Amino acid sequence: MSAFDYASERAEESVQALLRLLRIPSISALPSHAGDTRQAAAVTADLLRGAGMENVHLAEPATGYPVVRGDWLGAPGKPTLLLYGHYDVQPPDPLEEWKSPPFEPAVEDGRITARGASDNKGQFVAILKGVEAVMQTEGRLPVNVKWAIEGEEESGGKALPNYLREHKEEMAGDTVFVADNHFPAPGLPAILTGLRGLLYLELEAEGAAVDLHSGTYGGAAPNPFNALAWVIAGLKDPQGRVTIPGFYDRVVDPGTDEVDSWKRLGIDEERLLRDEIGSDSFFGEPGYSVLHRLYARPTLDVHGIRGGFTGEGAKTVIPASAVAKISMRLVPEQDPREILAAFEKRVQELATPGVRLTVKPINVDPPVKMAVGGRGVQAAVRAFKRGFGADPVMVRMGGSIPVMSAFQEALGVELVASGFGLPDDRLHSPNEKFDLAQFQGGIRTTAAMLEEFA
Amino acid sequence: MSAFDYASERAEESVQALLRLLRIPSISALPSHAGDTRQAAAVTADLLRGAGMENVHLAEPATGYPVVRGDWLGAPGKPTLLLYGHYDVQPPDPLEEWKSPPFEPAVEDGRITARGASDNKGQFVAILKGVEAVMQTEGRLPVNVKWAIEGEEESGGKALPNYLREHKEEMAGDTVFVADNHFPAPGLPAILTGLRGLLYLELEAEGAAVDLHSGTYGGAAPNPFNALAWVIAGLKDPQGRVTIPGFYDRVVDPGTDEVDSWKRLGIDEERLLRDEIGSDSFFGEPGYSVLHRLYARPTLDVHGIRGGFTGEGAKTVIPASAVAKISMRLVPEQDPREILAAFEKRVQELATPGVRLTVKPINVDPPVKMAVGGRGVQAAVRAFKRGFGADPVMVRMGGSIPVMSAFQEALGVELVASGFGLPDDRLHSPNEKFDLAQFQGGIRTTAAMLEEFA
Repeated sequence: MSAFDYASERAEESVQALLRLLRIPSISALPSHAGDTRQAAAVTADLLRGAGMENVHLAEPATGYPVVRGDWLGAPGKPTLLLYGHYDVQPPDPLEEWKSPPFEPAVEDGRITARGASDNKGQFVAILKGVEAVMQTEGRLPVNVKWAIEGEEESGGKALPNYLREHKEEMAGDTVFVADNHFPAPGLPAILTGLRGLLYLELEAEGAAVDLHSGTYGGAAPNPFNALAWVIAGLKDPQGRVTIPGFYDRVVDPGTDEVDSWKRLGIDEERLLRDEIGSDSFFGEPGYSVLHRLYARPTLDVHGIRGGFTGEGAKTVIPASAVAKISMRLVPEQDPREILAAFEKRVQELATPGVRLTVKPINVDPPVKMAVGGRGVQAAVRAFKRGFGADPVMVRMGGSIPVMSAFQEALGVELVASGFGLPDDRLHSPNEKFDLAQFQGGIRTTAAMLEEFA
Repeated sequence: MSAFDYASERAEESVQALLRLLRIPSISALPSHAGDTRQAAAVTADLLRGAGMENVHLAEPATGYPVVRGDWLGAPGKPTLLLYGHYDVQPPDPLEEWKSPPFEPAVEDGRITARGASDNKGQFVAILKGVEAVMQTEGRLPVNVKWAIEGEEESGGKALPNYLREHKEEMAGDTVFVADNHFPAPGLPAILTGLRGLLYLELEAEGAAVDLHSGTYGGAAPNPFNALAWVIAGLKDPQGRVTIPGFYDRVVDPGTDEVDSWKRLGIDEERLLRDEIGSDSFFGEPGYSVLHRLYARPTLDVHGIRGGFTGEGAKTVIPASAVAKISMRLVPEQDPREILAAFEKRVQELATPGVRLTVKPINVDPPVKMAVGGRGVQAAVRAFKRGFGADPVMVRMGGSIPVMSAFQEALGVELVASGFGLPDDRLHSPNEKFDLAQFQGGIRTTAAMLEEFA
């Protein structure tokens, strides 16, 4: 019997395994659900054992929730695939908007509705059941696998990155396969080939020692807000091009194949502008398409400016200080530390008399680039063709996925980021769902992935 | 007997009249003190009658506190002097910092400590007792006088400006004499020759229809904060010069006599920078002294920018909108409506794609200029020489005094703004005080003012 046939025959059993996990409200962000979150870890370990994995255990961090580990290393000489998932979920609020209770999964019309159905229990259980199908039909796997399923993805915990850093040898491998994303459109799988990095910082301008009245001191006292405006206006020009010297030096343009592949997404710019942004015009760097700018060009945005008076009426304060929250999205191969240094230098050049400027970094996350021609990506392309009958498109994402950076930085492995969800899965929202056909396709794709990767 | 001798003999009686008023907690900003505020109006009317004024009455506005009126019009053919004061006071908080209760005046070491002692009960009672001294010794006044003493100065009420606008003929006169200020230094009286105006507004930048995530939309969505930075940076250059076309067109430079007179103030710029501003450098328009910039040059300051995310951490929002609070201090003869139009035009020129900018005016107060050579100012110069034995210096103020604009706009009279207080009177603060010598000097100066003005 083939793994695909096995998966098909045991489809109902796979759904039941997933439902078992979905019934546990493993909300890692809420301390009141600590017991549930730990129970989800235990059930996950149980499922790994059921799939024939060895050395299954919970790796307990100093604080926080365990990383569920398990391996199958019976293919010496063959490559090693790392498999990822997270057993924690988002809080379900607002509860009143759910049509069925978030932790009492409803299976109806070919879909499972429950918190975590798509993000990420349904997706990692698909991987697990795909591995199990091969194991049960072949009695072995064609490659080695190592699992790391975390419980802090939704609460920003550091247990997984710390674990990877501290277990580099144990976790050594060739490629990590992550399914925590969705198809751009029904019937169109996608593989991520790049994620923008994030350099987020606070820029503080300090002028007078105390807040001053503009009637008495206006014209003599330095104003931190005006000073910030000159600095911010000097970081990006009104055409949308960042003017920090050296900012674009290391930017690597995507290949023409990749740019061509984006056309398959059929992005309707007019619709994007009207329905998603809701403005009368895009704003961004000239000379690039909107999608190119979102996927593969860096940018700089101000998120807020703190200080002074923002209430009703006319308080004429010249505040002692003001703080701008600014971030830069970075693309391969920009180095966030190098950009931070260039930013600081530029800021000091733009300082006006009487104002001291200081930069405090908050996030320094590098961009992530996946090689389109890599072994894992190519195997995944073929696996999706077999699992879903469709050629995946190569996409990028404008935002960062911390777990990708964690695997890249700690282990230096090839990254294959994809997903089995659909765009209407309502992640983080009421009535989150996962289509059974996508679940089954994910199981088949994983089974195929093991073979193709070997 | 001369009016000066009369004032001197009745000094204790004058103090008692002031104490009677100071015992009333006429805090116009607190509704719980409405009765007290009305009682202060009644006592003020009583004092006017005692000074020999006629037609004394409370002019009741539609809402708020009455204007205390009273005239003496027995000098046909002679000029008419308008006299001003306010019978309301600031709240006394924080109470625990007062050495004696704020509404139980303490007379000690040649000073009266009480809320309102200097601002403004002590100062207008000095004027009243000066008028009374002339009336009692001469049986008449050498000029006509009309009183308007308001009760909403500390709470921003509109009763007085409305009254003046609605009683233009009744209130017609040549000059208004206001004592609601202080000497720049002990022994150095001052007469105001200019006040900066205030054009205060909100500038809103609207981009996307909803808040967006910079990972997903950064590089395509317009950012209202960046847009505001370009606009603000385009309104004033990093050297401190406002770059709105036409902004400086109507600015009238002060005469050399006036600029020379400022030297008598002995302003120590080093001390101002170190002790008051507390920065390492002034910031302002090049080519002018610091005092010149504060007194007689217009400027533009940002007071706060509302919107987006200003908390701890790294929320990467591109907000739908942001609002900057901006004001311009204006000097004679700038027209705030003309400047507002120029501001709006400049702002629209600086708009970047995808962002709509709207300007909402909050304050549109014109600058106030007093003629150094006017009849009232020259009379006041001589009166101060006689009352205090010192030649007053001509000063300006960076901030606006709404009552001056009210008299100027409604009646078009000459403005003489001065004061009998000292710089350490602690207006609006605990332990407000008024020196008895300044009170007596104010009485003498007013008596002299009536003669000199005739």
